[in-house]
Parts: sequence; structure tokens; C-alpha cells
Amino acid sequence: MNDQAAALSGLSRRLADFVHASRPDDLPEPVRAHAMRAIFNGFGTALGGSSDEAVLRLERSLAPFSAGEAATVIGRPHKRDVLTAAFLNAAAINVFDFDDTHAGTIIHPTAPVAPVVLALAEMRPVSGEELIHAFAIGVEIACRLGNAVSPGHYDRGWHITSTCGIFGAAAAAAKLLGLGQDEILWALGNASAQASGLVETLGFMAKSTGVGNAARGGLLSALMAQAGVEGPPKPLEGPRGFLKVCSDAPKPERVEQGLGRDWEILRDMFKPYPCGVVLNPVIDACLTARRRPGFAVDRIAAIVVRGAPLLKARADRPDAATGREAQVSVQHAVAVSLLRGAAGAAEFSDTAVNDPEVRALRAKVGPVEVDPAVPIEAAHVLIRCADGSSFDIAETAALGSPARPMTDTALKEKFAALARYGCPALDADALAERLWVLPRAADDAGAIMALARPGHNDGSR
Amino acid sequence: MNDQAAALSGLSRRLADFVHASRPDDLPEPVRAHAMRAIFNGFGTALGGSSDEAVLRLERSLAPFSAGEAATVIGRPHKRDVLTAAFLNAAAINVFDFDDTHAGTIIHPTAPVAPVVLALAEMRPVSGEELIHAFAIGVEIACRLGNAVSPGHYDRGWHITSTCGIFGAAAAAAKLLGLGQDEILWALGNASAQASGLVETLGFMAKSTGVGNAARGGLLSALMAQAGVEGPPKPLEGPRGFLKVCSDAPKPERVEQGLGRDWEILRDMFKPYPCGVVLNPVIDACLTARRRPGFAVDRIAAIVVRGAPLLKARADRPDAATGREAQVSVQHAVAVSLLRGAAGAAEFSDTAVNDPEVRALRAKVGPVEVDPAVPIEAAHVLIRCADGSSFDIAETAALGSPARPMTDTALKEKFAALARYGCPALDADALAERLWVLPRAADDAGAIMALARPGHNDGSR
Repeated sequence: MNDQAAALSGLSRRLADFVHASRPDDLPEPVRAHAMRAIFNGFGTALGGSSDEAVLRLERSLAPFSAGEAATVIGRPHKRDVLTAAFLNAAAINVFDFDDTHAGTIIHPTAPVAPVVLALAEMRPVSGEELIHAFAIGVEIACRLGNAVSPGHYDRGWHITSTCGIFGAAAAAAKLLGLGQDEILWALGNASAQASGLVETLGFMAKSTGVGNAARGGLLSALMAQAGVEGPPKPLEGPRGFLKVCSDAPKPERVEQGLGRDWEILRDMFKPYPCGVVLNPVIDACLTARRRPGFAVDRIAAIVVRGAPLLKARADRPDAATGREAQVSVQHAVAVSLLRGAAGAAEFSDTAVNDPEVRALRAKVGPVEVDPAVPIEAAHVLIRCADGSSFDIAETAALGSPARPMTDTALKEKFAALARYGCPALDADALAERLWVLPRAADDAGAIMALARPGHNDGSR
Repeated sequence: MNDQAAALSGLSRRLADFVHASRPDDLPEPVRAHAMRAIFNGFGTALGGSSDEAVLRLERSLAPFSAGEAATVIGRPHKRDVLTAAFLNAAAINVFDFDDTHAGTIIHPTAPVAPVVLALAEMRPVSGEELIHAFAIGVEIACRLGNAVSPGHYDRGWHITSTCGIFGAAAAAAKLLGLGQDEILWALGNASAQASGLVETLGFMAKSTGVGNAARGGLLSALMAQAGVEGPPKPLEGPRGFLKVCSDAPKPERVEQGLGRDWEILRDMFKPYPCGVVLNPVIDACLTARRRPGFAVDRIAAIVVRGAPLLKARADRPDAATGREAQVSVQHAVAVSLLRGAAGAAEFSDTAVNDPEVRALRAKVGPVEVDPAVPIEAAHVLIRCADGSSFDIAETAALGSPARPMTDTALKEKFAALARYGCPALDADALAERLWVLPRAADDAGAIMALARPGHNDGSR
């Protein structure tokens, strides 16, 4: 048996055993702290996205099929059943692409996983420690599967946040439900039957259909397993299993390499801007250019952006028509950040896209030039002025990248700004304060959800 | 632009326009009749599957999340919301693999599509003609997408009934909901974000998770589109759309070839046996052998089966442990049909698999031998006896194949047997009678669903 065959044999079963055996104490302190920050950041982006039209329309279509009000939809007045709440919270967390990003796979792991543990925590009391542990385990499974199928999986067109996220969601739910080893394996099998999501939907509301589905489907996979819905023994490594079907060149050995020792969540990054992570270094470069002496927008003749192949593949989009498309448009991001000196939610709204000044400047941004040697956290922006002068900015480590992470203060500011933008009715300070000490919630971590519901932020359930 | 590029350009939009423009009168009479037979057959297999353990466990896991009782679950006492009913009916129709099969793609099109139009027909009154029309349109979309990705799609491991079925379900729902052209396109986009299902799950309960999801997800995709959840303009033909992502060599031109003229539903076959369609010729050959003079089970020394590559790929399974696995096991099918002279639901139960006589005989069935020249509706069975004699049967056109379709009488017998097997409490005759005249239901075709609910078969709603 060669290395890859050995890595494949029994993989799903061993992964189920890992999920089963893991205990909260197994998490190193930095992992626990990072998980808490990821959940905190996720609440912020969910509040920001909670009034987005895509999320509102999804809620409108799903509400008639929600049985009862067991779980909170972050930033929304009505509770829903746990599956519906998980769907909507995942959609809201990710809708602006402002949530966390796992370096290497560009999975947004919090969106599919956190809503599942939060919804379950409202079904029956769990401690903050248990909640964060189940979340970290789910993120780990999602990102490790992502490692095994990257980069080909995303490149071919699978929306990795959804396709790998559903396994993380299933694992997290299975852990918090206290399932046995066989049931955890079945949960992975039920997730394999539902793993979906296409990159083609990015820039459109249907992206959120896939992401919401990953959270809902993962939670449902675990509940199905609990009800005895059996899955195949090898949903991941089987000849017609997830790894082979959804990757042209899977690296199954990556799933277990360092499992339980090297935590993937530590490679999870928080984003300063509400758009595709590939745009971060481009925006940083533009904001730097704007601060240079002599810079003036009206002098600009042409702009050339050079970056990683993924920057072009994902975001070379000169004709974005909506805020959603603008989130994956180099041309819009360059224009709006040079003009306004900012790149927040307002800069990626439909209004911003239709601003005549933004449109005029973006027409001066050429097609993205590719340099295969440039990593995704770097980019180069060359601004040529009408008088022959130019501004030449090379950004090597975007804000939010592993080399230059956001500080706790910056995360708190981001949270507050998003809450103001998407859910001004909420007492966001009270929620932020309690979230920051979530790991210390002794018996009922889910009680925090009441603070995320506008009009019900007195802390009662 | 070459032929393929031309076929790709604007494909999703044109397909949405076709769904939008199609009228019940456009269906040729044979298409309407075949659609009615497919729905009739689907009710039969749903009744047979309604008490299967997989379906019961799925119902147990989904019931707490069903909001109200708008729609009937065939053969079950409790109504559920339309999404949940669509899921469970799809699962039940397909659970034994006894439902219809589209020649060429081996899609089971009724399972994902029929539950959607039946559930919607309980939400608001529609005529039998409208219902059958929407169903035929859905089957057409599913099978044509299947043509475009076959055979590589299934071979690689996608469960084509689920992955293509969700688009058919979305189209059928969009048609019956009367959506506009843009909304139909969005429905296809929302379906593309949810298209999933792996062959690895076949033989396990998780298969039904995928199939149920195709029906539910398709219906939801259309409801989302109705609520304004926008999708991408090219969910099928885009560079990261369904055809390219989920096929190594898509043939997009197959989607529209003869659209509206050559109806794929006429290539939909009904199955005499409750197992993978690839097993049909094998079972026919065994039943023939059994009728040969001098045949006696206790004289058998060894059995060799030779057939199409797909027969081996899908069903070379010497160690099936459950009824579900037995449905895709050549070795079990050969043993049980030779022993019992029958191949009904009882022959593919857990009990049958654990019958010591069946196990002893199946141990004499060798690995499947492949002959690439053999089509899937044919197979060769060689039975060697201990005394050196042998029985050598070549089946060229299995019962249920296009060359040898089941008669209406045989379909009615199959329906009655399945109803007795899975739902003996139901007045199946009354249901069968009304189903047979469904095309003539003038105003409220959905009223028929009351007859499919045990204890409520008086025809009232």
C-alpha cells in the first residue's frame, strides 16, 4: 500500500473517532482564544448582513417552513426552528464575504459551523467551553478536508465554503449532540449526500443559498444520524466518495497530518474589508497610494493591478452591476477605495456601484495582470497619472493576513461598525461584552443569543 | 464560435424560456400518457417504500421541523409541510430503486420531480393537465441535463438522480407556480447551489438523504426565486457552472437537441424488480434458467455473470449485509431469484439477505465479468453444475427495457403488490383507479392525495 492508499484506508472512520474522542481540555489555549474570536467576528458580520436583501429574501422564502421558534436569527426579530436559524445565520455571516478566511483553502469556516452550535445551544444548555470546543472541531474538519482537495477543488468551481463546510457543520453538531462513533460516521455520510455549492453563484444571492444549506444540511446530517439514518463506511475516501468525486487530485494524507496537534483554526484570518479576501492587498495598496503626497484622483489616467492567479480568476470583473458583484471586483474595489479612502460595507453597496464617480474611475482600471509568483496576500498597484507621473505600490502582507492579523481592538471596532450598519436597533455593546467572555459561560452559553435579537436584549431567554 | 461554444452560450436562459413558454397542449398524447404512467408507478413504489426503515428514520428526523400539515406523505398517516412531504415522498419512491429509470442516464426522474408537483397541487388547486405538464417538463430538464453529463458524471461518482433531479424539480415547481422567465432562471441558479449526491451512498440509507434533498431543494429553489432570491445568469453553462464542474467532458449540445420535439420521458422505463436497473437482465436470465428442464438449485457448483461495465461498477457486491446493499448486488440477486423464482420487495429485504440458503448460494457466484460490448439491458449467466452439465442463458432485452416494456396490466399488478407490501391499511384499488384518470381531473388534481393517506381514503381533503 503506498502512502496515499494508507491515508485513504479507514479515513472516515478515524475522523469520526477523532471527533468522538476529542475533549474540551484537548484544545490548546491559543486555539480556544482564536475560536472565540472567530465566533465574535461571525456575530459582527451576521449583524452587518442581517438586513441585506439576500438574507431578507431567503428569510421570506424559508419562514413559512420553520416549525416553531427554538433558535435566534442574529439581528432579526423572529426566532425560527434550529435548521432555519442555522441556514439564515450562515447566510448572514457570509453574505458580504466579510467573515473569516482559512489561509490556503479560502474556506470561510465560521459561516457553516458557528450557526449550528449556536442553534443547538438554544435547544439544550451547554457550557461556553463545550460550545467553543464543538465549533473548533467543526472548523478543523472543514479546513482539513479543504486542504485535501485544494487548490483544484475551488479552481474547478466548487464553492469550498459550502462543500467542505457541511462536513464541519455535521461534525460540530455531532459533537455537541454527544453522538457515538457510528453515528458520527453516519453524519459524515449524510453530509456527503448533500455537499454542494458552485463558484458560479458568487456575486449573486444564490451564493447564500449554498452557504445556508451547508449549515442547515450539516446540522440535519447529525440529527438524521441520531435518528438512525445510516451512511456508507467510506463517505470521504470511498471510490465514489467526496474526495475522489470532488477533486481531480485529492491529497487524503492532508486530512490527518498533525490532526489534534497543529490546529487549522490558527490559520483562520479575520478580514478588514467586506469583499473577497483576494482583494485585501489591492485595497491596502490603494489606501496607501491615497496617502502619498501629490496623490489626486482627478489626475489618474490608468491603473494596472498585478497579483496572484486567483486574484484574476476570482475577481477580474470590470462590469460589476450590484454590490454583491462588487465584492469580487478588482476594478470596483480599486475605484471606490481610491475615491473614498475607505472600504466598508457602504463602499460595497448597490449605491456605491452606481455612483457615477466610482464608475468613471473604475473604467480606468485595466484587466488584472497575473504574476504566478505573487501569493494571495500580496498585490501590486500601478497608478499612472495624466502628466506622466505614477504611484507604484507593492503590498506584501495585506491587513488581516497571518503576517499582519487584526488586533482585538480592530475586531471590536469592526463589530461595532457592522452592528450599526446592519442592525442599529440592537444594543451591540452588551452583546460584544458577553461574547468576549463566552468561554467562561458555565452552564448556558446559548443564553447569549437573546442579546442578538433586537428588542429582546435584556438577557432573558 | 464552435458548436459546443454555441450550445453553451445562453443555455440557461433559453432553457428558462422553454419552461416558461411551454403549455399543456404542447405535450403529444404519448408523452402525456407516459407521464401519467410514471406518476402511477411512482405512487406504487412510494407505497412500497413508505414503511421502509430508512424512510421512517428520515421522517423521524424531519418531523420536528415540519411547519404544519399542507401536504400528504404517501402511505403515511401524518401530513407535513410541502418541503418535508416532497423530501419524504422522493425518498420513498426511490428507496428500493424500484422506480422508473431513464435509458441512457439511469436517472430515476419521477422521484425528485413528482413529489414537488404533488405537494404544490395540495397548496392550491391545479388541473390534472397542468400537474402532468409540469411533471413532464421537470422530467425533461432533468434527463436532458443528464444526457449532457453522461456517462462520465455517474461513472465518476455523482448520483445523477439527485444531482440532475434537483434541476428538474426546480423547473417543475417553477412551472406550476407560474414563475416568470427571470425567476425560472433564478430557480435553476438556486438549484445549482444545492445540486449534490454521491454514488458512494448507494446501498445505504444516506442515498435517500440525497434523493429527498433533490426534491425538497428543487421545490425550495423555485420558492426562493419567487421570493426574489436571484441567481447567476449562467448556472449551467458558466465557466464554474454545473456542466463544467460536474462533468469531465460535458456535451452541452445534448441539452437542447430536439427540445420540445423528442421527449426524453418516452425513454423512461418501468422496472419489474426492486433493485438497480442493471440487475434486471441478470434476474430475467436466472428466472429463465429456473424454468429449464433439469434445473435444481442443489446441483449448482458455480455461477458466472458477464455483463456491461456498469453492471460490474455498480453491482459487483459479493458481501451485501442489508436489503439495501442487496439491491445493488449481482451475487444476491442471482442467488435469491434462483432459489425463490421471484424478485420482489420480499427478496430484497434484510431477512432475505440473511437467509442461510441465499448466503450459501451467493457464495457460488463469482466476480462479475465485463464485456464492453454488452448493453446495460443485456446480460449473460452461466450456471455450472457439480455433474459437469451447465445452463447458459443470454438475456438480450430485460423486462422493462425499451424493447420489452411492462404492460399496463403488469404496472397495475406491481402497484397492488407494492401497496400490499408497504401499506396494507390503504384502499389501494381506489387510489389506483383515480390515478389512472388523473389527466382528466378538471380542477383539483391534488385532491387525489387524500386517497394516498391510510385512514383518510374517503376522497375528502
